[in-house]
Amino acid sequence: MINEHFKAMLNGKSIIRELSEYATARGQEIGYENVFDFSLGNPSVPTTQDYTDAVIKLHQEENPMALHGYSPSLGNTEVRGIVADSLNRRFGMNYETKHIFMTSGAAGALAHAIRCVTKPGDEVLTFAPYFPEYNPYVNETGAVLKVVPANTTNFQVNFEKFEEMLTDKVAAVLINTPNNPSGAVYSTETIEKMADLMRRKQEEYGHDIFLISDEPYREIIFEGVDAPYVTKYYDNSISCYSFSKSLSLPGERIGYVAVNPKATDADIIAVMCGQISRGIGHNCPSSTVQQAVAKVIDETSDLSVYETNMNLLYDALTRIGFEVVKPGGTFYIFPKALEADANAFSMKAKEYDLILVPADNFGCPGYFRMAYCIDTEKVERAIPVLEKFAREVYGKKF
Amino acid sequence: MINEHFKAMLNGKSIIRELSEYATARGQEIGYENVFDFSLGNPSVPTTQDYTDAVIKLHQEENPMALHGYSPSLGNTEVRGIVADSLNRRFGMNYETKHIFMTSGAAGALAHAIRCVTKPGDEVLTFAPYFPEYNPYVNETGAVLKVVPANTTNFQVNFEKFEEMLTDKVAAVLINTPNNPSGAVYSTETIEKMADLMRRKQEEYGHDIFLISDEPYREIIFEGVDAPYVTKYYDNSISCYSFSKSLSLPGERIGYVAVNPKATDADIIAVMCGQISRGIGHNCPSSTVQQAVAKVIDETSDLSVYETNMNLLYDALTRIGFEVVKPGGTFYIFPKALEADANAFSMKAKEYDLILVPADNFGCPGYFRMAYCIDTEKVERAIPVLEKFAREVYGKKF
Repeated sequence: MINEHFKAMLNGKSIIRELSEYATARGQEIGYENVFDFSLGNPSVPTTQDYTDAVIKLHQEENPMALHGYSPSLGNTEVRGIVADSLNRRFGMNYETKHIFMTSGAAGALAHAIRCVTKPGDEVLTFAPYFPEYNPYVNETGAVLKVVPANTTNFQVNFEKFEEMLTDKVAAVLINTPNNPSGAVYSTETIEKMADLMRRKQEEYGHDIFLISDEPYREIIFEGVDAPYVTKYYDNSISCYSFSKSLSLPGERIGYVAVNPKATDADIIAVMCGQISRGIGHNCPSSTVQQAVAKVIDETSDLSVYETNMNLLYDALTRIGFEVVKPGGTFYIFPKALEADANAFSMKAKEYDLILVPADNFGCPGYFRMAYCIDTEKVERAIPVLEKFAREVYGKKF
Repeated sequence: MINEHFKAMLNGKSIIRELSEYATARGQEIGYENVFDFSLGNPSVPTTQDYTDAVIKLHQEENPMALHGYSPSLGNTEVRGIVADSLNRRFGMNYETKHIFMTSGAAGALAHAIRCVTKPGDEVLTFAPYFPEYNPYVNETGAVLKVVPANTTNFQVNFEKFEEMLTDKVAAVLINTPNNPSGAVYSTETIEKMADLMRRKQEEYGHDIFLISDEPYREIIFEGVDAPYVTKYYDNSISCYSFSKSLSLPGERIGYVAVNPKATDADIIAVMCGQISRGIGHNCPSSTVQQAVAKVIDETSDLSVYETNMNLLYDALTRIGFEVVKPGGTFYIFPKALEADANAFSMKAKEYDLILVPADNFGCPGYFRMAYCIDTEKVERAIPVLEKFAREVYGKKF
């Protein structure tokens, strides 16, 4: 009586994982320093010393029964308050403890938020290019993910298609800014226009349409970029955060849901998340990890390397002749491939030990993603290889 | 468009939580040392010094990017191997790494295991008395929990009712031994008889029936008690474990699924758990917690206080005239109330500042649960209060 639905999911291969596994195997052959692996979005800078010190101090000084005891099902109450205060301080919001629900990273936050505001059969819209894991995150709740085609001019929103697809069936709109894989940051203008349209449609349809904002890259914003705090612009909004990138703690699985205090049922959404947990076995992130991030709530790792790498790559790609939008944040860049079939392009790049992820799975065929969360020295060494590849395979002159 | 199903769950009150909150409030009034709070199953002994030292050492010596990096979606591969080796050494099993899936405690393990071996509409049987959270754990997967009535003679299995309810619709049988709330440990005879019946029914119906064994109390076994390792007795079995009780780490949310290597599809069940994760936002327990428990894999906290407390309470309850089965493990005892309505009994006990949980929600009306994971000194002080209560309210003479 093995569940055939989940068994069938085993056949769905992740191109990112395949390429990453290839890069590891190839690295064992020729030395990993010779493989230009742009496949994985794993932070390449350490967490802060303050975070490490906080964990050690908690283990040295706290009562172990308090430190390792069950945290309440919505998360450690004090930690939730600290998260609310930090958001209020930074973004001029009015969150209270009751609006915060601690989760296992952004994945956990999305799984809960989507279940809160949809019922099976409802549609959830997202925008290409998008993180392919949105498919299971949304579809496994019983809701149905629909993808609005990309605006490839600047990777802001394709409003014409958005309006067309924002039908009465849509219960939620899921956005990711700064965006994986494009690196685009939605501007204030984009967010305002989106909010206006959604308010209009809420009124027209007579039901709530929630805006779920997936924000693991919120702290990785490059110089001079307009990066509005999404939740400020739309009442029915839920912010899903992770400390994975900001504090380089992806393996610790720590994040939160922050419910806009002005949302419909704002006071019960976090409690509903607690109920949802009961059926999915979530039951809070690690109690010590919750307490440790609370000690360094406004800190981030030194994220400057990502901007350095982005500038190097953007300049090189542009010079070589790639069509590419300059990222406003994240550690991704998203150029157009040098032939229509990005998969073929990626296969050819592999011959040069350049590991580039074709973007068909991101809903944007013909493009590819480079994750530049790697050492700057390696980015620098990759550039002549990129040049050689473009010159030899595609006859680029520059 | 708030999800009405999860919203409705908010009305379901937990009697355990209510009583525990009452105990806390009452403690603020009269001093918590004067409230005999037997409501909560929170370990009352600290984790081991070795665990604490392991966490500190990992943070002092490991590369932070490796320590806090994403663990593979099935859990840290080395840790999974260490878990398999430990189970093989201790229980004579033949687990390999591929049979182990790291989870957020036993709750996470059950949420995954049940989804693996059932489809919506299938029945899952469990045995009264049972942990009330099995309702959401099972029913939120789409399967349907059915409860086999208790065998109140010794809290082993009511085989007559079990056979009657083990119809063609049943995809899985969920057991919990040592048992919350009864403290009973299923004997080798019980497990063998259960396995025989299930094998017979598998053959009769021509489909698998999985045995899911929920084992958070596996290491809390009292002297001389026969405590078989369930999975040895039945091929289609999955063991769900948590370190919450053995290492007093309930807040760290760390456990695992161990799939019997002889089960149908044994080689893919852990990988299926990985797929299930994608939809429920699980994505592994904390990477450092995984690595730290692996360093102390065969250790437990000093669990002897639970047996000391059990003996004190069992002797006292018996002397007072309660009908009570002697627990073989856990930190619970499960006497019959002194009147038919255990809720009324519990309300009267509250007047004596005795916090006792009536067992209607555990599928066993007329009984109550005492969680004796508290200081022995407090158990000793509770006994004269229990005596006074039984004498004054129920006219017990002893």
